[in-house]
Amino acid sequence: MTETVFYAELPWPEVEARIAAGAPVFLPLGATEQHGRHMALNVDVVLPTAIAARAAAAVGGLVLPTLAYGNRSQPKTGGGPGFPGTINLSAQTFALILRDVICDLFRQKVRKIVTVNGHYENIGPTIEGIELALDAIGRDRSDGLVILRVDHWDMVQGATLERIFPDGYPGIELEHASVIETSMMMALRPELVDLTKAAHDGPAAFLPYDRYPKPCAEVPPSGVLSLTEGSSAEKGEWLLADCTAGIVAAVAREFN
Amino acid sequence: MTETVFYAELPWPEVEARIAAGAPVFLPLGATEQHGRHMALNVDVVLPTAIAARAAAAVGGLVLPTLAYGNRSQPKTGGGPGFPGTINLSAQTFALILRDVICDLFRQKVRKIVTVNGHYENIGPTIEGIELALDAIGRDRSDGLVILRVDHWDMVQGATLERIFPDGYPGIELEHASVIETSMMMALRPELVDLTKAAHDGPAAFLPYDRYPKPCAEVPPSGVLSLTEGSSAEKGEWLLADCTAGIVAAVAREFN
Amino acid sequence: MTETVFYAELPWPEVEARIAAGAPVFLPLGATEQHGRHMALNVDVVLPTAIAARAAAAVGGLVLPTLAYGNRSQPKTGGGPGFPGTINLSAQTFALILRDVICDLFRQKVRKIVTVNGHYENIGPTIEGIELALDAIGRDRSDGLVILRVDHWDMVQGATLERIFPDGYPGIELEHASVIETSMMMALRPELVDLTKAAHDGPAAFLPYDRYPKPCAEVPPSGVLSLTEGSSAEKGEWLLADCTAGIVAAVAREFN
Amino acid sequence: MTETVFYAELPWPEVEARIAAGAPVFLPLGATEQHGRHMALNVDVVLPTAIAARAAAAVGGLVLPTLAYGNRSQPKTGGGPGFPGTINLSAQTFALILRDVICDLFRQKVRKIVTVNGHYENIGPTIEGIELALDAIGRDRSDGLVILRVDHWDMVQGATLERIFPDGYPGIELEHASVIETSMMMALRPELVDLTKAAHDGPAAFLPYDRYPKPCAEVPPSGVLSLTEGSSAEKGEWLLADCTAGIVAAVAREFN
Amino acid sequence: MTETVFYAELPWPEVEARIAAGAPVFLPLGATEQHGRHMALNVDVVLPTAIAARAAAAVGGLVLPTLAYGNRSQPKTGGGPGFPGTINLSAQTFALILRDVICDLFRQKVRKIVTVNGHYENIGPTIEGIELALDAIGRDRSDGLVILRVDHWDMVQGATLERIFPDGYPGIELEHASVIETSMMMALRPELVDLTKAAHDGPAAFLPYDRYPKPCAEVPPSGVLSLTEGSSAEKGEWLLADCTAGIVAAVAREFN
Amino acid sequence: MTETVFYAELPWPEVEARIAAGAPVFLPLGATEQHGRHMALNVDVVLPTAIAARAAAAVGGLVLPTLAYGNRSQPKTGGGPGFPGTINLSAQTFALILRDVICDLFRQKVRKIVTVNGHYENIGPTIEGIELALDAIGRDRSDGLVILRVDHWDMVQGATLERIFPDGYPGIELEHASVIETSMMMALRPELVDLTKAAHDGPAAFLPYDRYPKPCAEVPPSGVLSLTEGSSAEKGEWLLADCTAGIVAAVAREFN
Repeated sequence: MTETVFYAELPWPEVEARIAAGAPVFLPLGATEQHGRHMALNVDVVLPTAIAARAAAAVGGLVLPTLAYGNRSQPKTGGGPGFPGTINLSAQTFALILRDVICDLFRQKVRKIVTVNGHYENIGPTIEGIELALDAIGRDRSDGLVILRVDHWDMVQGATLERIFPDGYPGIELEHASVIETSMMMALRPELVDLTKAAHDGPAAFLPYDRYPKPCAEVPPSGVLSLTEGSSAEKGEWLLADCTAGIVAAVAREFN
Repeated sequence: MTETVFYAELPWPEVEARIAAGAPVFLPLGATEQHGRHMALNVDVVLPTAIAARAAAAVGGLVLPTLAYGNRSQPKTGGGPGFPGTINLSAQTFALILRDVICDLFRQKVRKIVTVNGHYENIGPTIEGIELALDAIGRDRSDGLVILRVDHWDMVQGATLERIFPDGYPGIELEHASVIETSMMMALRPELVDLTKAAHDGPAAFLPYDRYPKPCAEVPPSGVLSLTEGSSAEKGEWLLADCTAGIVAAVAREFN
Repeated sequence: MTETVFYAELPWPEVEARIAAGAPVFLPLGATEQHGRHMALNVDVVLPTAIAARAAAAVGGLVLPTLAYGNRSQPKTGGGPGFPGTINLSAQTFALILRDVICDLFRQKVRKIVTVNGHYENIGPTIEGIELALDAIGRDRSDGLVILRVDHWDMVQGATLERIFPDGYPGIELEHASVIETSMMMALRPELVDLTKAAHDGPAAFLPYDRYPKPCAEVPPSGVLSLTEGSSAEKGEWLLADCTAGIVAAVAREFN
Repeated sequence: MTETVFYAELPWPEVEARIAAGAPVFLPLGATEQHGRHMALNVDVVLPTAIAARAAAAVGGLVLPTLAYGNRSQPKTGGGPGFPGTINLSAQTFALILRDVICDLFRQKVRKIVTVNGHYENIGPTIEGIELALDAIGRDRSDGLVILRVDHWDMVQGATLERIFPDGYPGIELEHASVIETSMMMALRPELVDLTKAAHDGPAAFLPYDRYPKPCAEVPPSGVLSLTEGSSAEKGEWLLADCTAGIVAAVAREFN
Repeated sequence: MTETVFYAELPWPEVEARIAAGAPVFLPLGATEQHGRHMALNVDVVLPTAIAARAAAAVGGLVLPTLAYGNRSQPKTGGGPGFPGTINLSAQTFALILRDVICDLFRQKVRKIVTVNGHYENIGPTIEGIELALDAIGRDRSDGLVILRVDHWDMVQGATLERIFPDGYPGIELEHASVIETSMMMALRPELVDLTKAAHDGPAAFLPYDRYPKPCAEVPPSGVLSLTEGSSAEKGEWLLADCTAGIVAAVAREFN
Repeated sequence: MTETVFYAELPWPEVEARIAAGAPVFLPLGATEQHGRHMALNVDVVLPTAIAARAAAAVGGLVLPTLAYGNRSQPKTGGGPGFPGTINLSAQTFALILRDVICDLFRQKVRKIVTVNGHYENIGPTIEGIELALDAIGRDRSDGLVILRVDHWDMVQGATLERIFPDGYPGIELEHASVIETSMMMALRPELVDLTKAAHDGPAAFLPYDRYPKPCAEVPPSGVLSLTEGSSAEKGEWLLADCTAGIVAAVAREFN
């Protein structure tokens, strides 16, 4: 069982040994959130887990269990907290999980941590969780602790986006459940994608502000914020390759 | 993709429809915790997930993503917070996750919830999380909300324990990483068990109190609190069958 | 007034002197909780206070004021949060009290602390409170800080249980308001026990899971989970002697 | 045992019956805090408990267990958090205890609550705890819930203060461990007072601001902020009579 | 004094009357954060306050006191928490302020609330604070409560950006302390801008991930993330006009 | 712009330089609270801000942005949380702001901090916030950190009060919105005072206890707890001079 990159599939002596040997530890951050009528709720879990696993395989790292529940979905970036199926943690709860996990990794002498995020709304509470951990651990460190915070979509190369969106990239926020996520899911878990169910009620035309508590009327009923046309497993592989390469490069730059 | 019992492998319209049709929702509660030299760290994730999935299949239910990080491991029941590999959440963090998930399930009209726990130390903060959710939702309900809290080991029949332990059952606490858990893992994920690595440094002889902060000297170095001898996949299936049947019976009794 | 073991009955210079001389400090942890129709609500306060006082007298220790409010009573171990008379703290509140008291004892150079618990539901948040204090104080200590966590029932010898329960010990959880607690109360505060009011509606036959929010129908209406028959002050003294001796032995083993 | 006013010395059916009959419930709020070389640390527990008990006896009320740990002692009103013997809760912990106790009293249909405070620093977090409970319970009530918050020293009549302090009343803050508290302790628990140990290092001459973190140099080393001369049990009885009468009058005015 | 739009410059009867008459209430959200060598630390306070005041004047609204401390500055959007002068609140503290203020506005019957944000890092905890308030107040409202959340930069028209950045808009994140903010400050508080002090060490070339705890080396030493060249009060007025008009339009659309 | 004492009106290099040169940093603590029909809601913001600015000018200090929202107003000291116009933070929220600001000032090497409070109800949570910051930073400091906590009314000389109140000083609590505050506002912001609107419904005759949740009937309807007769800008200047001189003296005594 020792060939796996998955931390939790190893017995403790093997984990201890790999960490002592300098293995970076990847923490995928996901969500259980609507991703349109054509994809499963676990898109934000599948993508960062797969990307972290590919990166870990390349650099001798370990992948922690993915956080499967994310910070409250918002209408403009995920459909919003009122969408059926979506399960929302409060920002403080999410940040406390990060704080606890990082503090405990630190306690067992992990000094190279990479969070790999797949859910837009997690950005803020991930930063907060890291800061809370550093509040507890201290920031003036001589032990080399480095935490990298990666949003997978920021690892995609401009050239790749141009290949995928010859008519222009709509931006990652509107990309929710759209071509990028759909393509990567088609590459990784095609059985969880059914393009025949894809609605054509987007792209969303959002007003330039948020409104509470009434759900935002501008969210397309399908939950797809942009469009799914043109998604393909091949494009998914291009994107996954970029994400993996970007993380591998970051690890090489920052942990040596 | 609609045959699965896993909530997060479904698109949102299917989840909405199943909940509207009365599907109970199972939430497996796990941990990432040392389980001896012979088993992976994910035992407390694998077991409740599998049990919940079998029960859900039997009753038309849905299984939520498993909480993969548990409340602080204690020396006498899991080796303790200082064991390599183990990752510990504070009790408050764990309880807040439960609170948030239950409140959000309630919001989307789920009225039948079953937590299926696989980690002893989760018991207290699971109760607290349920109570916190009820503090928020209110307890005088006419909408039929029922939450069942199951520890899988309590579903095992006395007769089964007698078959497995003809010389007497050592109790679930000492069973950590021992015959019961090892047998169920052999039935479910044999590739994550390597009995040749099982140490024989137990069973633990604990003093009748806890000591902090120095790690408890009485924990066997392997992390196995009792013994692994006699573990088998066949016994694992006996246990899994009991757990599944017990939950199915509970669902039948309480949700109708 | 300097003969007392009760910390709060001393002026500060005497407390300062005793701590400087190495006196261990005992913190009894109780609850205000129903204990059947035949006993007062303060059973979980009286017992650990008395046990701590006897142990402190034997080892030159000090007994802090008892926490008189405990963590939320649960149906299977205390009748549950909905029972008249019972007053419930949330787990986080209880843990924060422990944290604050321990941190403040530490600040005034107390290095030998023993919590003596009399309420089953306090176990989890007591552990959490100790861990929170250690999160704040730090765990790598050269100052000899040792905290012992004792549940008084775990100090009872097997031989004593056999004498008291010649037909077999039902286990501490079912013992709520039953022979063990009743006997010790008869030894300590007989005026707070009225066996003529003892109901015979037990022992409880609990289902192997918990149910929320509807109160568990299986709790005997009296609140006595097992039986009171056979309770006596004499048996109470056997039990108190065991508890005291056990703590004295623990203090001798761990603080020297 | 049914003659007592102490809530926790009653079995649950008796508490239930008295509350149903309209008994007001008194919650004494104390502290474990230095009170000079001549008095025990429990002054702030003994006084509000005794006053609440006298008032409860007069109005058919019940007295809950006293909170024995108070909010952080401050130099000018109690000697400060660094004094030996004093044990300090944070304001949030203290407020949460109040919140939980009040919410749970409310749940069991108590509608007449009186907090009787004996520790100056508890005022703020008591108000906060009551407000937090009302945040949870709601403020627009038709069920008659009334909570009275009493500081016992505010119940003393001007005429009594003139009798006790013919040269002028120094104010309650400086009165810490001085004539008022000493006299009441002499009336209630004379064995916990030893006037031969009273130092004459006061009254304190405080600067008109607070300083942190260095302990305030102006606190008299004895911890007595004013003077003890002239303390007597007789004066203590005058004071206790005022406090009792004041609470009885408040109960008559507000709960009918 | 009754001509002002500033809530806190009015006596309570006037505030009560305006709210009863339907005045929307604006809450500006700012920060105390470095904004380069050429501008004061209060840019994020001055801008949303002025924009809210102009909008309030146009629609008969009131402007609450601005929150002058913001959520933790991050390197890529504000220079980061380690920059001299910047003062950082944790996300939870910021969210709790929002929660408390909104709940209290709701209590006094305000039903039209607009948050006007001037600090990028406030976005997440503002959303969380609004959600926490709605958790407390409830979301199924018949009283017409509407909360609008505005980031002022999202109100700028594309045409205006094209006029200001004929060579292309670098995006709001890189705009920190750059042309947009500098121009608006020159229009509003020219005495707080000194363009002779503007450094030319940008624009920042950020790596596509965040790094902790070591400050991000890619932040320009001046704290200006992009460029200041071309800033002018005239451009500032174009921007302020857009922001004001956008909010006025939103108020008209949503509150009627 | 470098002549100002206001921290947030300076660019970061100037703030950094002044702190390095030893400038004490003043943090004014205010509230948005009813102050009668004759004054604006910002009295508790205007007064401590102006006093801090005068003191800072005298000692070469810096004045941070004022906290404009205070801890929950209470009936006897400010009219109470239910008064129109008043906006209340919970005690914990207020304390967390203090904690965060102080910790962040400490991080940037500020070692001389003075809080200048203008709202009675802020006292408790200010102390708590300072203590929470010290819990995080540590109390055994060799870096000279000193925090002074000033309530401005405590800086007024007895002789001045005698001049202002020849018939006797009613005490600061009853002074809410009365002669002292009105006079200082007349000196500082006369346009925010309209004595023709001053009601004559006081002074309040409070009962010697607090009552919840029903608003205290004894609060004068105007919100003025005592009287406004005799207020004048000249008296306001006497008071401001005392407050300034008192703080200057404290700074001289404690920071050198």
